Amino acid sequence: MGYQTYLDLIRPLLGDQEVVVSGMQAEVKRCRAAIDRALAGRRVALVSSGDAGIYGMAGLALEILAAQGRRLGPPGCEAPVDLFFEVIPGVPALAAGAALLGAPLMHDFAVISLSDLLTPWDLIERRLEAAAQADFVIVVYNPKSKKRDWQLAALREIVLKHRTPATPVGIVSRAWREGQAATATTLAEMLEHPVDMQTIVFIGNSQTYAFGPYLVTPRGYVGKYEVGAGPGGEG
Amino acid sequence: MGYQTYLDLIRPLLGDQEVVVSGMQAEVKRCRAAIDRALAGRRVALVSSGDAGIYGMAGLALEILAAQGRRLGPPGCEAPVDLFFEVIPGVPALAAGAALLGAPLMHDFAVISLSDLLTPWDLIERRLEAAAQADFVIVVYNPKSKKRDWQLAALREIVLKHRTPATPVGIVSRAWREGQAATATTLAEMLEHPVDMQTIVFIGNSQTYAFGPYLVTPRGYVGKYEVGAGPGGEG
Repeated sequence: MGYQTYLDLIRPLLGDQEVVVSGMQAEVKRCRAAIDRALAGRRVALVSSGDAGIYGMAGLALEILAAQGRRLGPPGCEAPVDLFFEVIPGVPALAAGAALLGAPLMHDFAVISLSDLLTPWDLIERRLEAAAQADFVIVVYNPKSKKRDWQLAALREIVLKHRTPATPVGIVSRAWREGQAATATTLAEMLEHPVDMQTIVFIGNSQTYAFGPYLVTPRGYVGKYEVGAGPGGEG
Repeated sequence: MGYQTYLDLIRPLLGDQEVVVSGMQAEVKRCRAAIDRALAGRRVALVSSGDAGIYGMAGLALEILAAQGRRLGPPGCEAPVDLFFEVIPGVPALAAGAALLGAPLMHDFAVISLSDLLTPWDLIERRLEAAAQADFVIVVYNPKSKKRDWQLAALREIVLKHRTPATPVGIVSRAWREGQAATATTLAEMLEHPVDMQTIVFIGNSQTYAFGPYLVTPRGYVGKYEVGAGPGGEG
């Protein structure tokens, strides 16, 4: 069971099992329907894109099951449970996107969704401020949608209080899918590039640098290891 | 090419290609050796565990290649390059560990390594403080090693300034590998559980709750959706 777009991505892996597709706005309904089937004895997989545990369906499923007071346990557990339940990890969009940019996430990072549908904007703003001042690399989910078009510019203003306009920024859309695009730019110019619902934005920390088409965040701040001595050196 | 432990994990996937193993402390040397071979015309895979781009080998490889002034491009690119270079994303430890705990990462999170080998402790402390006060879920890499045994207790003191002792904490070791262990505990009791080099610690935000053996961070702060209406409800 899942959103049409995500089920299409795994269509080649599906056999003759029942496939239940649903629309984008029907997340809670889809999740309840999956739980109802599982409680009726069916073996159900609820499909997310990326990793189901990062802004995905795993949490919504657990929220509903908790509200229903169900007892859960891992598949095969011997305790009395209403459902066997398991979250299968995947490659999250932050890892898929980072790989296309080179290595922006080699040091501490903060992951922030700019969607203010379920989170008040003042909390999002507080998190951006905290992440920017403490020199985290910042990974931005949901930077923009048709109805939300000003948040990314607001983020940029906040980060510019703490980092230079030349700070490297990476913009990745549809990583490892059809229509994939990865761009290395800067804080100064980041708003000139296309961004949509399927885009993740990476904002470098004070040490991140551009290297050809790649972004690299060095592992260390204190120069304890030496990488510049040429091929074959001991390091 | 890679660290022995990681190559052992993928041994069943290896064919008759050359396999070069190295020890834990030889990261820079291993990386240089991989680059030297690639420059000599070999096709080389440098193997990391989890995701190579999150505190992994991807960044070190790019740092060395940048210091050497090499020109890189993706496999098959038509521009003149010294090397084809590609980072393949994987399932990072943060996603693998979170899945065993249920859904702790359904809202904004900060990822912080407690290793002060390459990062000054005062910067790590500043990041912990920022993440704690802005109510990020906190994912802790490298919480402890044989030589570093006090940082996790210091983290706990910082977080306790901003969250209650009952805040849920998850401790996961060797996720999805032999010897896997996942424990849900609290800030108050987190230091009573075993933690080592192969452990990731998850600290819930102010909304995270325990549900049986699971940790759940709700998706929303503002109650715009309703999950408690019972099976089959519209939501």
